[in-house]
Amino acid sequence: MALIVQKYGGSSVADAAGIKRVAKRIVDTLKSGTQVVVVVSAMGDTTDELIDLANQVTPNPPGRELDMLLTAGERISMAVLAMAIADLGVEARSYTGSQAGVITDSVHGKARIIDVTPGRISEALAAGAIPIVAGFQGVAQATKDITTLGRGGSDTTAVALAAALGADACEIYTDVDGIFSADPRRVPKAQHVPYITYEEMMELAAMGAKVLHLRCVEYARRFNLPIHVRSSFSDRVGTWVMSDAVLKEKKVEQPIISGVAHDLSEAKITVVGVPDKPGNAASIFEAIANANVNIDMIVQNVTTTATSSTDITFTCPKTDREMAVKTLEALKPTIGFNSVEFDEDIAKVSLIGAGMRSHPGVSASFFRALASADVNIEAISTSEIRISVVIRAGQTDAAVQAVHTAFGLDGSGEAVVYGGTGR
Amino acid sequence: MALIVQKYGGSSVADAAGIKRVAKRIVDTLKSGTQVVVVVSAMGDTTDELIDLANQVTPNPPGRELDMLLTAGERISMAVLAMAIADLGVEARSYTGSQAGVITDSVHGKARIIDVTPGRISEALAAGAIPIVAGFQGVAQATKDITTLGRGGSDTTAVALAAALGADACEIYTDVDGIFSADPRRVPKAQHVPYITYEEMMELAAMGAKVLHLRCVEYARRFNLPIHVRSSFSDRVGTWVMSDAVLKEKKVEQPIISGVAHDLSEAKITVVGVPDKPGNAASIFEAIANANVNIDMIVQNVTTTATSSTDITFTCPKTDREMAVKTLEALKPTIGFNSVEFDEDIAKVSLIGAGMRSHPGVSASFFRALASADVNIEAISTSEIRISVVIRAGQTDAAVQAVHTAFGLDGSGEAVVYGGTGR
Repeated sequence: MALIVQKYGGSSVADAAGIKRVAKRIVDTLKSGTQVVVVVSAMGDTTDELIDLANQVTPNPPGRELDMLLTAGERISMAVLAMAIADLGVEARSYTGSQAGVITDSVHGKARIIDVTPGRISEALAAGAIPIVAGFQGVAQATKDITTLGRGGSDTTAVALAAALGADACEIYTDVDGIFSADPRRVPKAQHVPYITYEEMMELAAMGAKVLHLRCVEYARRFNLPIHVRSSFSDRVGTWVMSDAVLKEKKVEQPIISGVAHDLSEAKITVVGVPDKPGNAASIFEAIANANVNIDMIVQNVTTTATSSTDITFTCPKTDREMAVKTLEALKPTIGFNSVEFDEDIAKVSLIGAGMRSHPGVSASFFRALASADVNIEAISTSEIRISVVIRAGQTDAAVQAVHTAFGLDGSGEAVVYGGTGR
Repeated sequence: MALIVQKYGGSSVADAAGIKRVAKRIVDTLKSGTQVVVVVSAMGDTTDELIDLANQVTPNPPGRELDMLLTAGERISMAVLAMAIADLGVEARSYTGSQAGVITDSVHGKARIIDVTPGRISEALAAGAIPIVAGFQGVAQATKDITTLGRGGSDTTAVALAAALGADACEIYTDVDGIFSADPRRVPKAQHVPYITYEEMMELAAMGAKVLHLRCVEYARRFNLPIHVRSSFSDRVGTWVMSDAVLKEKKVEQPIISGVAHDLSEAKITVVGVPDKPGNAASIFEAIANANVNIDMIVQNVTTTATSSTDITFTCPKTDREMAVKTLEALKPTIGFNSVEFDEDIAKVSLIGAGMRSHPGVSASFFRALASADVNIEAISTSEIRISVVIRAGQTDAAVQAVHTAFGLDGSGEAVVYGGTGR
């Protein structure tokens, strides 16, 4: 009997009606002859409401306590979902991350999964019950304290659990029909992407596509677990995320370019006048890593011969900006740079496609498309299957649209868009 | 260094302002040189809101899932309270019932504590942090599932934890200044009771006084742990609940009668025409106990010689009435009684006082007081330190007032009453 893990995001379980709809979908899957394990996020705006409550008592809630508070969200949604399934005549049992064996490190707010020991989930399956697992949360191996996994954490829970249980696939239910060649909210002619490789999906996720989180795709790739991203509001097939090899086996024809992503959530930080000495870059990025700031693009300018110093620029989430600047300011006496500058009014636009490996000239066409839309490029970074630029935030739509059209991605129909995103 | 356990009910932590007020009280206690462990209930109406949510998806939520859902309430209040304490510069760490070592049986919705192993609480105290423990909840020894303790469960958590930690006292914070000689909402001249014995308090609690729950007092009595019931809205001394022996040591003068209690939450059930055969009563009450129905008064009429049958009447919580009737109907073929009748329009009024042991005539004065208020008595039950009657619900106020006056309990001032009750 096939086993799949289904993950439902906050927008799919926003209210009692949504929970009942999802319950029916789960029971239908079981009745079609497939074993199901469910991972669920907190209902709708619960997480934001809990954060508001915390902020009413203190501007700086301790990470341990904030995690304890936020995990109440999934506790509510999973119990109510289990009740709704029971109401349809099928036994369901809810489990916290800790009960489901999701073991993490001790970094509150963005813990990483280090092991999954789903003994109780297997027992529930063997007893014919549907296990409902809280997404986004785990228990720290060292302290036994409750942790949360940070943005996209529920997706990661689902994939990690699917891998540990040896599931055949992981279905990620959201409010859109999968992956599109660009954000359908910004590019009306964005096209649905039926298949995509892990590598492309990782680049898309890292570059700001909100549908799947980077860590979840990394995890799936490591275990070669197929992910099906689809909408809980329709029965349409979504996007399958698979390995290059499996796609070739299936004889799926892959396009050169799979999509255009944009990201408005990052800030640009520049360390000005770093003395050109071995070890300075290492010191800077070690300090940043120790402060648990996730950095993304790194650009270092050519050293000015006159001053023997250089500027180092990187991007990081806006939410980490204050911590990053504080950390760098503390290094100033040791390293002896001039200043730390930051800019939050930026966007990152990326072109992604496994096919660009073998097609020269993609970068040139990308820069040409941006130039014809009068978009100025402030920084460039590339990987084997991606090219990204930093531009002014206000030019995001113009840039994404121009690139989408230039690479022949515009479809004939209009994409369907639903509101909201889960976590 | 003295150690006390403080328990704050839902009305004390109804909103962010309440939580901050409670946090300050806790930190003040610590600064006065006393170690503190805190037990907290869910905020204000959280529990009712969660039950509403459950009822939106099913009329019959499974007990396991309802417990999982409801325990989210304390998770929220304890984390936010820990944050508010941290904001005052003192470290606080929140713990679920399971983390605090509250081990229970597996009866969802009304689990009983069977062991308390507060290792993590002791560690937190040793580290100089204030432990905040979720009231009302535990973990089942057999199934490892989360359980709730039922009505008054947070009080029981506090007393059980205080006993396990060897605390000097347990402070139960509520929205009234302790115990009164009658409900101040019904008897304006009700007087504050400064000291009361465990036995009297147990009778008061069992007879409907809402301030402390029966099980919590039983627990305190077993471990000879002093309880101080007081208001979190004032600094006034509340009511000390202690053993007879300790009160005598302290040379506290005890009145003959400590108070009048009433209870509108019970239903009266009568099994009509039970054949007069050994074992029938046992069969009836075994079946009722197996259905987890808590029964209170039991009255059996004299056997009618003509029919060789009798009527058995008992009272139980209205919420258990349906289950009790269903259970009894199933016994009808085996036992061969005539019918099961029930009546929910009743009240129980009780007079409680350790002094009545040595004072004859208390019952007669009690019945006389009811008679002069034109109150008809439908059933009578007595213990060594209590006498209770079942009357029509509509006559509750008249009965309580008449008895309160007849026994000289009316004070000169008016009692202060605050709204709401915790769990």
